[in-house]
Amino acid sequence: MKNLESLGLKVINSSLSILDQQLLPHQEKWLDVETPQQLVDIIKALKVRGAPLIAVAAAVMMGLMAEKGAEASELLEYEKLLRSSRPTAVNLMNILDRFLEILQHSPVDTNRLIALSERVFQEDAELCEKIAENGASLIEDGDGILTHCNTGGIATAGVGTAIGIIRRAHELGKNIHVWVDETRPLLQGGRLTTWELEKLKIPYTLITDNMAPYLMSQGKIQKVFVGADRVAMNGDFANKIGTYGVAVSAHFHKIPFYPVAPYTTVDTQCLTGKEIPIEERDPREVQGIFGAAGELRWSPKGCPVYNPAFDVTPIQLVTALVHDQGVSSQTEIINGELNTMFNAPEAGS
Amino acid sequence: MKNLESLGLKVINSSLSILDQQLLPHQEKWLDVETPQQLVDIIKALKVRGAPLIAVAAAVMMGLMAEKGAEASELLEYEKLLRSSRPTAVNLMNILDRFLEILQHSPVDTNRLIALSERVFQEDAELCEKIAENGASLIEDGDGILTHCNTGGIATAGVGTAIGIIRRAHELGKNIHVWVDETRPLLQGGRLTTWELEKLKIPYTLITDNMAPYLMSQGKIQKVFVGADRVAMNGDFANKIGTYGVAVSAHFHKIPFYPVAPYTTVDTQCLTGKEIPIEERDPREVQGIFGAAGELRWSPKGCPVYNPAFDVTPIQLVTALVHDQGVSSQTEIINGELNTMFNAPEAGS
Repeated sequence: MKNLESLGLKVINSSLSILDQQLLPHQEKWLDVETPQQLVDIIKALKVRGAPLIAVAAAVMMGLMAEKGAEASELLEYEKLLRSSRPTAVNLMNILDRFLEILQHSPVDTNRLIALSERVFQEDAELCEKIAENGASLIEDGDGILTHCNTGGIATAGVGTAIGIIRRAHELGKNIHVWVDETRPLLQGGRLTTWELEKLKIPYTLITDNMAPYLMSQGKIQKVFVGADRVAMNGDFANKIGTYGVAVSAHFHKIPFYPVAPYTTVDTQCLTGKEIPIEERDPREVQGIFGAAGELRWSPKGCPVYNPAFDVTPIQLVTALVHDQGVSSQTEIINGELNTMFNAPEAGS
Repeated sequence: MKNLESLGLKVINSSLSILDQQLLPHQEKWLDVETPQQLVDIIKALKVRGAPLIAVAAAVMMGLMAEKGAEASELLEYEKLLRSSRPTAVNLMNILDRFLEILQHSPVDTNRLIALSERVFQEDAELCEKIAENGASLIEDGDGILTHCNTGGIATAGVGTAIGIIRRAHELGKNIHVWVDETRPLLQGGRLTTWELEKLKIPYTLITDNMAPYLMSQGKIQKVFVGADRVAMNGDFANKIGTYGVAVSAHFHKIPFYPVAPYTTVDTQCLTGKEIPIEERDPREVQGIFGAAGELRWSPKGCPVYNPAFDVTPIQLVTALVHDQGVSSQTEIINGELNTMFNAPEAGS
């Protein structure tokens, strides 16, 4: 396999290594990932995260296993194993479908599998570029921009989705300020987005999630850009818990609210947001801090907790969806634009 | 001075001790507080908190100092010192005004000062009872109730304000479930409200602040009750950061939203919320965990932060204000009810 390199994932001499996002921002440590099971483990432990990057990592793993001479039956096992690692993100499903298609033919075409891995990586980076291009034009000089969770170069194989747009606007010389909400419970905003913006030298300020509405009321926020883990055909979308609240508050304050995603995040099988499964996570994440940021409990022992990892934002709260093929407004989406664009026979191939 | 006792403050044999709320829920430790400066320090360190309880603690300290034979000039110094400890909470100002009034007369009437201390304590407990009575009738069997921060028996000398209402509804046999948001950055919900509800055996579930809107969309929340640190005469009110976002989301979901406060929280000098000063706190509280819950930084070193301790919710988002004299609806408040009730010449006396 070709050498491939992004901010959070590398293939050098057919060896996959992944930046351990659980150790950021304090330590930049690369993990060698040799087996599909290892990859599933690090996906579940959120050492690698971001719907696009998880899909890229799974694709690379499929290609590497094929290159190592795995047989069709083994590759089918690996495909199933990888598919199970993250139920909410649809990019993974979409991309594994493409591997499955090749695996239907006997004998297994190893070269096609490897080529597909490389293409998935390359394509994700290109999708980010197109998204950045499409979204940056929405940003004006002087904008305060709120973003949630992490959607940057460590969530994709390229410049990122929402952060890719912010980065492009900054590179174009627009004078912007980014408000980063910390994104409880796992603090991807506080740990990762801050780290990326530091690296990119983009001016930012960290806040707790519950401060964002107050900042909107103060006129400090002009636009909101967030990522998406799955977009339904009616434009509803799932994203990191807290996104829905940001959308409600942006709507109330008449602030444009843009989810950002490549077409690989659009689930053509999913008609509305109601059908998106929402993963619940370990109660210890809400009982205190549990995970990358450390381990600390501040609530009473055994405190009852609800911990959905995602929420669903309805199209009614979306100003427009920014994607690799352009910007689709709420009205266009309600009128069926996602169907027209993505549900044609060749889509998802 | 009489012996006085509440969940978080005790006077036994003229010695004041205060439950250290920074150590909850893990440890119940009482601090002996001997001087006004010590009290200011523990107020600033949030070892004692809650707008009503801070005022009660300051009142008790004034009485104890008088009892120990402090002279008028010293008492005036103490009054100034205590007044400076918490700029947003108005109860403290209102109650210290009553001491100032006595101190205007020479010679100082020590007995009157001591009696006032005792009365402030007793009155706060009675105000809580009346509030609980007035608010509990708003709660129906089967209600899911969201509350923010901590407004209970450790924030007042009595059963609390918002939590007092919840407690009374529970005691009346209403079948309720409380959703406790953790209240970043200082986690009063996660640490203190959970601890109190455990003690009271009221069913509850802890969530992160950013989950509340999603729960509202799922139909899990029927009412919101929150405290207040200062109520302006037009009904706008300041409360713990995050309150405004809860109000916006409740408004969007058409869920009744009730701030709860005794008349001592109403600032007759403050016409609208715009005039309420908002205290900004240590950036380390947002850069990670800093304070009662521990010390941990997950963001990059020196990460820029915004950390307002309070926000202001406008009357337009308030369904009704629950207070010791009844329940005032948004319309009644807009029509000047707070003026009529609290701005009469005897008010604040």
